Amino acid sequence: MEFEENGIGEECGVFGCVAAGEWPTQLEVAQVLTLGLVALQHRGQESAGIVTSNGASPPTYTAHKGMGLVNTAFAPEALLKLRYGNLGICHTRYSTTGFSELENCQPFVVDTLHGKIAVAHNGELVNAHALRKRVMRHGVGLSTSSDSELITQLLALTPPMEEQDAPNWVARIKNLMTETPTSYSLLVMFKDVVYAVRDPYGNRPLCIGRIVPVSKMHSSGAGEEDTEGWVVSSESCSFQSIGAKYYREVLPGEIVQISKHGVKSLSVVPRPEGDLPAFCIFEYVYFARPDSIFEGQMVYTVRQRCGRQLAIEAPTDADVVSTVPESATPAALGYAQQSGLPYIEVLCKNRYVGRTFIQPNTRLRQLGVAKKFGALTDNFAGKRVVLVDDSIVRGNTISPIIKLLKEAGATEVHIRVASPPIRYPCYMGINIPTKEELIANKPEFQDIAGYIGAASVQYLTVEGLVSAVQEGIASLKEKDERISSSNKSEKRVGHCTACLTGKYPVELEW
Amino acid sequence: MEFEENGIGEECGVFGCVAAGEWPTQLEVAQVLTLGLVALQHRGQESAGIVTSNGASPPTYTAHKGMGLVNTAFAPEALLKLRYGNLGICHTRYSTTGFSELENCQPFVVDTLHGKIAVAHNGELVNAHALRKRVMRHGVGLSTSSDSELITQLLALTPPMEEQDAPNWVARIKNLMTETPTSYSLLVMFKDVVYAVRDPYGNRPLCIGRIVPVSKMHSSGAGEEDTEGWVVSSESCSFQSIGAKYYREVLPGEIVQISKHGVKSLSVVPRPEGDLPAFCIFEYVYFARPDSIFEGQMVYTVRQRCGRQLAIEAPTDADVVSTVPESATPAALGYAQQSGLPYIEVLCKNRYVGRTFIQPNTRLRQLGVAKKFGALTDNFAGKRVVLVDDSIVRGNTISPIIKLLKEAGATEVHIRVASPPIRYPCYMGINIPTKEELIANKPEFQDIAGYIGAASVQYLTVEGLVSAVQEGIASLKEKDERISSSNKSEKRVGHCTACLTGKYPVELEW
Amino acid sequence: MEFEENGIGEECGVFGCVAAGEWPTQLEVAQVLTLGLVALQHRGQESAGIVTSNGASPPTYTAHKGMGLVNTAFAPEALLKLRYGNLGICHTRYSTTGFSELENCQPFVVDTLHGKIAVAHNGELVNAHALRKRVMRHGVGLSTSSDSELITQLLALTPPMEEQDAPNWVARIKNLMTETPTSYSLLVMFKDVVYAVRDPYGNRPLCIGRIVPVSKMHSSGAGEEDTEGWVVSSESCSFQSIGAKYYREVLPGEIVQISKHGVKSLSVVPRPEGDLPAFCIFEYVYFARPDSIFEGQMVYTVRQRCGRQLAIEAPTDADVVSTVPESATPAALGYAQQSGLPYIEVLCKNRYVGRTFIQPNTRLRQLGVAKKFGALTDNFAGKRVVLVDDSIVRGNTISPIIKLLKEAGATEVHIRVASPPIRYPCYMGINIPTKEELIANKPEFQDIAGYIGAASVQYLTVEGLVSAVQEGIASLKEKDERISSSNKSEKRVGHCTACLTGKYPVELEW
Amino acid sequence: MEFEENGIGEECGVFGCVAAGEWPTQLEVAQVLTLGLVALQHRGQESAGIVTSNGASPPTYTAHKGMGLVNTAFAPEALLKLRYGNLGICHTRYSTTGFSELENCQPFVVDTLHGKIAVAHNGELVNAHALRKRVMRHGVGLSTSSDSELITQLLALTPPMEEQDAPNWVARIKNLMTETPTSYSLLVMFKDVVYAVRDPYGNRPLCIGRIVPVSKMHSSGAGEEDTEGWVVSSESCSFQSIGAKYYREVLPGEIVQISKHGVKSLSVVPRPEGDLPAFCIFEYVYFARPDSIFEGQMVYTVRQRCGRQLAIEAPTDADVVSTVPESATPAALGYAQQSGLPYIEVLCKNRYVGRTFIQPNTRLRQLGVAKKFGALTDNFAGKRVVLVDDSIVRGNTISPIIKLLKEAGATEVHIRVASPPIRYPCYMGINIPTKEELIANKPEFQDIAGYIGAASVQYLTVEGLVSAVQEGIASLKEKDERISSSNKSEKRVGHCTACLTGKYPVELEW
Repeated sequence: MEFEENGIGEECGVFGCVAAGEWPTQLEVAQVLTLGLVALQHRGQESAGIVTSNGASPPTYTAHKGMGLVNTAFAPEALLKLRYGNLGICHTRYSTTGFSELENCQPFVVDTLHGKIAVAHNGELVNAHALRKRVMRHGVGLSTSSDSELITQLLALTPPMEEQDAPNWVARIKNLMTETPTSYSLLVMFKDVVYAVRDPYGNRPLCIGRIVPVSKMHSSGAGEEDTEGWVVSSESCSFQSIGAKYYREVLPGEIVQISKHGVKSLSVVPRPEGDLPAFCIFEYVYFARPDSIFEGQMVYTVRQRCGRQLAIEAPTDADVVSTVPESATPAALGYAQQSGLPYIEVLCKNRYVGRTFIQPNTRLRQLGVAKKFGALTDNFAGKRVVLVDDSIVRGNTISPIIKLLKEAGATEVHIRVASPPIRYPCYMGINIPTKEELIANKPEFQDIAGYIGAASVQYLTVEGLVSAVQEGIASLKEKDERISSSNKSEKRVGHCTACLTGKYPVELEW
Repeated sequence: MEFEENGIGEECGVFGCVAAGEWPTQLEVAQVLTLGLVALQHRGQESAGIVTSNGASPPTYTAHKGMGLVNTAFAPEALLKLRYGNLGICHTRYSTTGFSELENCQPFVVDTLHGKIAVAHNGELVNAHALRKRVMRHGVGLSTSSDSELITQLLALTPPMEEQDAPNWVARIKNLMTETPTSYSLLVMFKDVVYAVRDPYGNRPLCIGRIVPVSKMHSSGAGEEDTEGWVVSSESCSFQSIGAKYYREVLPGEIVQISKHGVKSLSVVPRPEGDLPAFCIFEYVYFARPDSIFEGQMVYTVRQRCGRQLAIEAPTDADVVSTVPESATPAALGYAQQSGLPYIEVLCKNRYVGRTFIQPNTRLRQLGVAKKFGALTDNFAGKRVVLVDDSIVRGNTISPIIKLLKEAGATEVHIRVASPPIRYPCYMGINIPTKEELIANKPEFQDIAGYIGAASVQYLTVEGLVSAVQEGIASLKEKDERISSSNKSEKRVGHCTACLTGKYPVELEW
Repeated sequence: MEFEENGIGEECGVFGCVAAGEWPTQLEVAQVLTLGLVALQHRGQESAGIVTSNGASPPTYTAHKGMGLVNTAFAPEALLKLRYGNLGICHTRYSTTGFSELENCQPFVVDTLHGKIAVAHNGELVNAHALRKRVMRHGVGLSTSSDSELITQLLALTPPMEEQDAPNWVARIKNLMTETPTSYSLLVMFKDVVYAVRDPYGNRPLCIGRIVPVSKMHSSGAGEEDTEGWVVSSESCSFQSIGAKYYREVLPGEIVQISKHGVKSLSVVPRPEGDLPAFCIFEYVYFARPDSIFEGQMVYTVRQRCGRQLAIEAPTDADVVSTVPESATPAALGYAQQSGLPYIEVLCKNRYVGRTFIQPNTRLRQLGVAKKFGALTDNFAGKRVVLVDDSIVRGNTISPIIKLLKEAGATEVHIRVASPPIRYPCYMGINIPTKEELIANKPEFQDIAGYIGAASVQYLTVEGLVSAVQEGIASLKEKDERISSSNKSEKRVGHCTACLTGKYPVELEW
Repeated sequence: MEFEENGIGEECGVFGCVAAGEWPTQLEVAQVLTLGLVALQHRGQESAGIVTSNGASPPTYTAHKGMGLVNTAFAPEALLKLRYGNLGICHTRYSTTGFSELENCQPFVVDTLHGKIAVAHNGELVNAHALRKRVMRHGVGLSTSSDSELITQLLALTPPMEEQDAPNWVARIKNLMTETPTSYSLLVMFKDVVYAVRDPYGNRPLCIGRIVPVSKMHSSGAGEEDTEGWVVSSESCSFQSIGAKYYREVLPGEIVQISKHGVKSLSVVPRPEGDLPAFCIFEYVYFARPDSIFEGQMVYTVRQRCGRQLAIEAPTDADVVSTVPESATPAALGYAQQSGLPYIEVLCKNRYVGRTFIQPNTRLRQLGVAKKFGALTDNFAGKRVVLVDDSIVRGNTISPIIKLLKEAGATEVHIRVASPPIRYPCYMGINIPTKEELIANKPEFQDIAGYIGAASVQYLTVEGLVSAVQEGIASLKEKDERISSSNKSEKRVGHCTACLTGKYPVELEW
């Protein structure tokens, strides 16, 4: 809940689409891109951008970027001007760093000796500072503070091994991947190709879908010949909304080429010997939409399993179980199922409360969360409530909710958190407060229940979380035969739990 | 769900605030009004308006109206110019009739012989046509097609019994109430007073709250001396968000005067002998926010009871129970509790899908509801699902959801509707499709399950709905001693079920 | 110049168009109306509105109003929705009185017992206060402080002599004209007719044009059969921009009916015995566009004549004559021609200086007019300059210009004003400062040259102005035979000079 | 006139300001920058941008860019965020090339190894294509098609002779100047310094002003100690509007450093032996504001001289002389003075006609220029008119004006153009139509008078134009002793007349 309330931890979403077959095709690529962005809107609401290419030689690129939600940023004229694209990539961004807002919007497009490339990026380069220095030392001016511009310029730099007149984008991408281990899920568009790239640790998600006729969207009978195009997306939840079937994940370290001819795995850049993959475990805990699929399992199911595990680890003597809407609901239902306590709703959320122009005064600040949540008093008056939340970060939003519930008649409020305490910063793309602001690092944490006014507070253990996540993967049968056997070793499972444990997947250089 | 999807049946919300004690007070009335509007935003998203008065003699009124959501319509400058109000009324509107949009926004303000009045109205006058004729015959030009302007001009007309130089607003309001029986919940502001009026049938809701220090908002110890102001609102859900305690409902036919000196019941205009009150039963079924209180009971509880009753009337041989998010959830939980079947979630809603500028093409139309809902496949694959919805109107949105669930693996989908079929138009403020468009009046209704692809479809009976609503009222103890004993006869309970039964509370004149 | 700088004295413009022949015709009425408004934009920049009618029975009216310049207020969608009009009226407004801005925009449309009427008005009713009282006493609420709404409601009131079921708009307009003598130029649209009305004193201008094929616009051979439509406008300058030929003025007191069948004079309401017409003399001095024609003469020519007269009345021993751009240029050229002194330019105006968001500080205030005018130093350094201005009102803008010219090298600056000092308020539609603010009523006026830093200051006399205006009319031959002979007595000429002399055309009632 | 009508030939404006003395000073730099931009608005209306620096170590830069006029692009919040600048540069741009509009706005800011630099540029690099190749070959991606980004990246490239850790911006600027001969007037801001640079040919203007107390703005007594800051601007017309005294021009090839300590000439990069300066002669003819000063003479005076010269070269047997407002007026007055014919006004311009949303139809196209100009018939009916225009480019706007005048009664219309025919493209920053579109290159040019309907058409000769321009410079006494004697050789005068003669100042490389 706290992530949701505070805009903590939101990150970016990337999406791409390539029409299949000979161009121009029937597929309206700009429309698919826009719908894809809308489906990824939960990953970033600050700005959105689309770049399309007509795929010709030389290609014509068309771009539109705008501040705010996709539906605000893409007015009819914007969609009109993008309409001749046969392929394209897009991006939705979560926050502003740097000093001119629109300039930081992605995708970035630059003209190079070999033509224009467009880049969309989700993640954060752990060695960004050193790479910026390197690029600038080469004599390149950087117009933003964005890692994505940095990546774009790194790709523009002619690598030593390349002949000047024969661009080899794949070699350049590989070169980039050797210079920065993580984190990035990347889309690079050049003329008539989109390269989909995931860092060797697979820290950020990326998966591929196949567009088929709507009527065959859910049927298993949609054959190769039905393919209308390909999409690549941070999350699979976008596939259904545009009429695509889930195809497969991009593997950690993999470079996949998507063109009108289809999808082709070009290379898998390996991790250092012994390193496990490090997919961000908070994608499961909070960021992703519950109907997305990672590593073969549905996020909703993992969250529910976390709730069950929490009920095992932290049972409660109480009357009812409830959720802080909306993100904690799967875990709350899991807790209820496992514990046998009845599941009820205790809070009603006003979905219209948002960015308002009201100047806050004392009264408004005192009201706090009450502006946003109505108490469903009759459901819990006189009862002991287990309130399940997905995570606690600063600990400043759960407290007024507990107060609200108690004043509205709850006799006890027990907080159960479906993830472990966050204690460490993330350097791989998640906007987590500084160490000092995290409630888990404060003296108050010793008596957090007293501090926030709860009857008790208990967290899921790291082990509990990891097992709830990995249990589903272990039970997976190998479903996808399209990945060459050399990649099957990827089944060794690992996740990044750095914000919980301080164990970062790579050494941090600053 | 269908109401929510199609904008059917939305209506308006009214809200008012008067600061208590000697003016100027600490209470920022414009801020309270804005927050109140935001809390009533679910009742209307087309436009919003606020009018404040400084309460002086002569008063200075300040107004701002704008299209769209409250947070859009009220930019910082708008709030700034309103800030000197000591009292005010506001309105949020659901749709546009008439030919210049902003002009139809409420509140309406007119200058009369005795000074300016401002009027905000929720409802629809059953004899509007005849009243328009009467007013225009008197020589008044009407600049909009709005009932609210009509009411304003009716109030401006000097009634025969009034001396020209002594305005008697209460007499004028009473006069208005004798001319039109229903439906209206009305706020009339004049100088330093807000009159809160509910039609004799009590068709639309209206209730009063008392603003207290935030710290005493939930405590029973907030005494008279703690009163910082008064609010009056279509729904009580707005009280918590501004720090007010629920005080009481305005009774059917009652005129309540709210001033800096407090709240005073001036009169109760009676219904014709033998007529029962006729509060709109669909406020319970769909319109109101679940944390609002009508007739002493919480809306959520009534909806849950409807779900339980539905489980009794229409039990199902199935594996799981679920909801069409979000409005049907209380009923679905009620059904699950009563039936003993487990409650699960089957659909994930993308809250960012909204008014978009994408031009629909064939593919988009085929995708339909899939753009908005993601299937939580793992939760129901291979299972028989009872899907509870709150109401079915045209029947065109439930069908693609059933298709989606079946394609995603549900073996059977049984539709259970927590209200009876809608068969008749509403002439009292609810925007219901024409009789011909209602699925219940179509031949397809004979085999509606076949038509929409469900394994079975069953509705709550009218008797079941009425008893689920009235059961809670019957069990109420008389809680509020502030209403004079002469009004206690109001306990005879009745509800308007015209759209379900065709029995209108008053004879319709056209 | 001062009017121009300070927005003093701007007023409104009205414009109407009726397509000729059987509907629907080729003529795009909405486009003609928009162009007409743009041509009258100098009469008001605050807001603009258009109402069209399709002329059917019952008619469909379409309206759009917006704040700001015509080109801002009328976006493509607005023009699109207006496009089916066969006739229409429009209005451009100069300032905001009343408390909700858009609501005061004209034209006003109201629904009456006999259908909708639309009204556009230029002027100010001298007895507005009493008329408001009368209307409100009748029980009408007035939603704005605008005289135009008042007129609309006065027209809606059934006059005693009229049968309720037989609307007689002409009788109602006549009735209105007996209730208020001045000032108004009025367009009233009802179904398929536009009534063009000028008050009995002819205080505000109004004239009629005939739309012909563009190719025949300037040819004398455009016959009756070439008529594509009719336009009516505050000023004839709009005719050329839409391709219309000047037809004739609406006479003082005249009601002209314009329909698809043509133009018809219905009536001329007389003035009280002995009263002369009172056309506002400041239309000649400042308000009108120089290419407009009033009373048979071009405004530019009158201004030039004022300059010549000024040179006769107030000759100067100087080297060069110049203007304060742009409004004073015709008078300055007239002065130069009469005096024999060379005409030069001394100031260059930055046309982009306008409403800016820069917060003024001391430096900015000190810079004053220098931000807006550049000195063309080389043209006048070392010379004695006669600077001709059209009028001086508060006297606060000419002073910094004199300073600027002197600092840039002028040895002497002599101010010659092509109109007499303004001493009295206008109650007939011109926004003139209060008596106390007028420089002519201040002690400083005794030594105005010293006060503003000029070598000398001289004004045109009232007699000089009147003779410069009327000289052109006297020499006119009777050109228009279309006016019936009974109206020829209208040739007795008179003008309103109230702001200069305090002699108002009618007794003022308050 | 045609430039004005068609947006042909507009170009950009640059402006900078540095507060003098110890920071923070009283001078509101952001305000000065905004006023400066407004004064240069005639050089570009498409977009505007400001970047300020607080001058600290490391500096904080603040930027704002926006589309449209300065007053639109700089809303209050934008000015607020810029307010802490102690120095800054800004830019107003005339048109859009490249594919994302806002991204092309200047100034450009990039981060380099040595910190951020900001660049504003007026001009066009003749060898841009080759330079782009060079930069991209180095591995730099270019995100826009703008020459200004190119310059910025060229400055970021470490030149061979520079040690990596000791930035030497002046050396880099010099290096840039050796790589591209023309055309650029450039402002480069780095931390606490603005470098003002003009290309060796001086093709684009650039001059320096000194901010003094407003009260001393025009007095000769403003001493060194009165200096509040320094400004640098494309044109001196901006100085008066911000309260600055003209100081001097930046010389061709000169690099001037402006800091809080004052103005310092760092270097003058020479032209190839034998090459003359090549200041764009069209700055005199059309682009500049008439009150600006170039090469010691006022633009207005030069235009007047062109008119006089035209009267000598092309006398006319006619009755009156007039102008196509507003840009041709100085030339028309010069023609009148020289010829002895009376100067009159024939056209009244509607300054509100602008970008409108009206969809053009046949009628509208036929009306053409009539929408914008009103004929002042009485001034010229029955007369032979000499109409002076500043330039003719495509020749499509003068024709309807001649038609208008003739239809309104002119017996003959003689066109006299105060510049020679434009025959060749400009590659140095002026947006001139392609060779094929220029009327001077069309067969119609042989009988241009017949083609446009004039009685006769005559142009100023190239020799006439050059002598009218250079006559004023020759007569100049050396006024400015601040330039070191080594720079005095700059008095050899030359101008770029490439668009008239095809003689480009440098060889063109493509």
